[in-house]
Amino acid sequence: MASQKKTTRKPSLSKDSFVRSLQLILPKESVLHEAEDMHAYECDGLSAYRKLPWVVALPDTVEQIQAIVRICAAHQIPVIARGAGTGLSGGALPQKGCLLLTLTKLNKILEIDATNNTARVQPGVRNLAISEAAKQYGLYYAPDPSSQIACSIGGNVAENSGGVHCLKYGLTVNNVQKITVVTINGEQVTFGTDGYDNPGYDLLALMNGSEGMLGIVVEVTVKLLPIPEYAQVLLAVFDDVQDAGAAVAEIISAGIIPAGLEMMDNLAIRAAEDYAQVGYPTDAAAILLCELDGIREDVNQQILNVKQLMIAQRAKEVRVSESEQQRLEYWKGRKSAFPAVGRIAPDYYCMDGTIPRSQLGFVLGKIKEFSEHYKLAVANVFHAGDGNLHPLILYDANIKGELKRTEEFGAKILELCVEVGGTITGEHGVGMEKINQMCVQFNSAELQQFHAVKQAFDPYSLLNPGKAIPTLARCAEFGRMHVHHGELPFPELERF
Amino acid sequence: MASQKKTTRKPSLSKDSFVRSLQLILPKESVLHEAEDMHAYECDGLSAYRKLPWVVALPDTVEQIQAIVRICAAHQIPVIARGAGTGLSGGALPQKGCLLLTLTKLNKILEIDATNNTARVQPGVRNLAISEAAKQYGLYYAPDPSSQIACSIGGNVAENSGGVHCLKYGLTVNNVQKITVVTINGEQVTFGTDGYDNPGYDLLALMNGSEGMLGIVVEVTVKLLPIPEYAQVLLAVFDDVQDAGAAVAEIISAGIIPAGLEMMDNLAIRAAEDYAQVGYPTDAAAILLCELDGIREDVNQQILNVKQLMIAQRAKEVRVSESEQQRLEYWKGRKSAFPAVGRIAPDYYCMDGTIPRSQLGFVLGKIKEFSEHYKLAVANVFHAGDGNLHPLILYDANIKGELKRTEEFGAKILELCVEVGGTITGEHGVGMEKINQMCVQFNSAELQQFHAVKQAFDPYSLLNPGKAIPTLARCAEFGRMHVHHGELPFPELERF
Repeated sequence: MASQKKTTRKPSLSKDSFVRSLQLILPKESVLHEAEDMHAYECDGLSAYRKLPWVVALPDTVEQIQAIVRICAAHQIPVIARGAGTGLSGGALPQKGCLLLTLTKLNKILEIDATNNTARVQPGVRNLAISEAAKQYGLYYAPDPSSQIACSIGGNVAENSGGVHCLKYGLTVNNVQKITVVTINGEQVTFGTDGYDNPGYDLLALMNGSEGMLGIVVEVTVKLLPIPEYAQVLLAVFDDVQDAGAAVAEIISAGIIPAGLEMMDNLAIRAAEDYAQVGYPTDAAAILLCELDGIREDVNQQILNVKQLMIAQRAKEVRVSESEQQRLEYWKGRKSAFPAVGRIAPDYYCMDGTIPRSQLGFVLGKIKEFSEHYKLAVANVFHAGDGNLHPLILYDANIKGELKRTEEFGAKILELCVEVGGTITGEHGVGMEKINQMCVQFNSAELQQFHAVKQAFDPYSLLNPGKAIPTLARCAEFGRMHVHHGELPFPELERF
Repeated sequence: MASQKKTTRKPSLSKDSFVRSLQLILPKESVLHEAEDMHAYECDGLSAYRKLPWVVALPDTVEQIQAIVRICAAHQIPVIARGAGTGLSGGALPQKGCLLLTLTKLNKILEIDATNNTARVQPGVRNLAISEAAKQYGLYYAPDPSSQIACSIGGNVAENSGGVHCLKYGLTVNNVQKITVVTINGEQVTFGTDGYDNPGYDLLALMNGSEGMLGIVVEVTVKLLPIPEYAQVLLAVFDDVQDAGAAVAEIISAGIIPAGLEMMDNLAIRAAEDYAQVGYPTDAAAILLCELDGIREDVNQQILNVKQLMIAQRAKEVRVSESEQQRLEYWKGRKSAFPAVGRIAPDYYCMDGTIPRSQLGFVLGKIKEFSEHYKLAVANVFHAGDGNLHPLILYDANIKGELKRTEEFGAKILELCVEVGGTITGEHGVGMEKINQMCVQFNSAELQQFHAVKQAFDPYSLLNPGKAIPTLARCAEFGRMHVHHGELPFPELERF
């Protein structure tokens, strides 16, 4: 087993020398080192925490990345890879003395193979850009994070991103065929092939969700799917959240796999309707959005079946979209739920945990209790079909103590997810945000195994150090789930 | 990176002392150490190679396994885990001085959770037994290797087994929710949870297909699926193998995901028909079997669509099963193809490689050329939908030189799979059989990464050493794909 590594160290060269070394590899404008040029990089989507990087590099070739990584390895400079910076758990958060390696310039779609249904792309390619390019062949890339207009495929791999359609089509790991990675030694290695299955250890799967801690992803071959001939959405209205939960269980038990199956509670419905005006019933306790896709006749048949199941669970109304435009309208409300909630509160904290489906009712009830206890409102918008919760805790960072209360509330929710057999992350990763809760999720033998795997790829812990996997010392200090009151969870970071 | 470990070493205690140590943990009859008691364990399904283990242990609790593994770790005794011994790549082949840890006595189904659709089972539980136990809840376990009556779930995890239904439902890795493993230190660690997604590195996926080299799987929670309401099979008859291949491509391109999509060529058809007498057309160049499952109305609609696509690709006849009995008849021929081929030749060698679907026609043509060159007949029976080939090379081990020619032919097929972008294994694993071809599949940086991962779990290389991942020295000797003529590929083993 690996020993616990310290995550801070002193680089063996000065900032000036480092910058000069990088300028021999990159054009001057691709090396940022003055504070005023680097503010855009001091946080990712988890904007509550910020830190200026030491230096930012913007390579545009794989060879440049190899050369840069070799310099960092030689001089013990931590390397944090960053895609579009839309991550929600602080995976791309800089740390003291680090090189932030920004991959946005590697944004070429290298090949679309319409026979084998794959696209070979650079890591900085935006998620949605893949589907746009594949459209002419009748194909698309299935995982669709809410940020799909902006987020990059390299970041999707790092965080094993999901989205509304992952119930049917899986997370990023299920939709990636092959990955090329630059190791901390500056070598290129490829995991996965153009065939089915992979001999040897499944390092392709391992790379997904590894949050930039095992290697720098420099090329990704994703699987493409035929664009479904037909898709429609049912919108079911419930007077009771528990009934909506029961309907979810019934649909799945019937062997139906919807393309998406989402739940929103009353606060989320009202916020979304106020923002998007798509006709959501603002007096409903909960709505379910259930998308069915495939061949037209199949979809029509499934709509009838799902509608029946929903009514049997006391849905008081079930609407079915009747056109592509209406289908997009129904989704528009759901997809704008996060910014919509952002309008009804100065700040919100988006949680991401998963639970076994059978615990849906119990967990929603407990979240309501916590909400009363902490005196913080919470809107629930989530992927009900796969038990992936996204409680949005509403708070005001300007009110002293509210952020701390929010973090405690969030931690309680994650702890509850683990208690009922679930996990502290569904699709956003652990990053910096949930590193303490990893101490609740795993025992020390398991955490040691994670560290040993890290060491097998990155023996000096230079790749995104200190993220995702807590040291045993950290867990001991953290006292598992018992937060030391009054302390910041991450004292090494400035709170924004 | 890990240095290359030697895989043979001298245990630090005598066989007598080792046996006595084991007898303090297990009842006497569960420790086999005389040659005459151990013959059943000298090979697995790859019966061309055999080796007597040093000692065989048959624990029936996890605590016993922990205690046994600790003794092996302390005394540097290699541990080879074995399930039902049905593996086809020699993953459970004993080696000199090893403990063969046979897990068949851990055969309890611990829990079926019909709300969350999971079953928690011990590793020795047979694949089919899970579906049998889940049937009363209307559930089943999807991956169905041909050996599903006999093979165990622990072995399925070790080899990441597939089967006819993996096109739609995925390999073992896609159907496992949680795994508990005993590490080489004798500790229990659990990867995966009862929720969706997993925080930290994806060690759950890593464990699948790791061939007993990273830990001993002692408990598996598998995902169960609702038994499809309805399923039928189409049997399409083609005069040309290329047309059958084109039909496969058309079906997949149309966005249809059959539960199974299998191809058999003329020799396989004739052998199967002779054996099972299910009415296969013995004069066809190829048949496709396409199973569609789901809700009755959907299935009926899809049957029409698939039939149309097959006829458009010159199928001269398309039969549709009209009852459950007929569906099973259609499959009976396919499922008995291996023993059927066993009847028309003294021996056969079952290959397992995958290729991108677009290469199907090209690769089948090349296999035919090789067949003529090596003067060995080949029957093709395979999972066409996912490009997973199973050429069965017919030979007679009693004819001097035929096994060697067969192995060379097999190696050529695997090399070809890699050349067209595929892999040397689809679902049978690498084991001992294909370890040399790993030198073709991966470069030395990649192989070194595999060794480093191995070392992160098993620093002294005691768990199933020498399997699946070749040493760099072995690859250098092997000269990549260039077999040294006249040499056995595995000189350390006795050929049977």
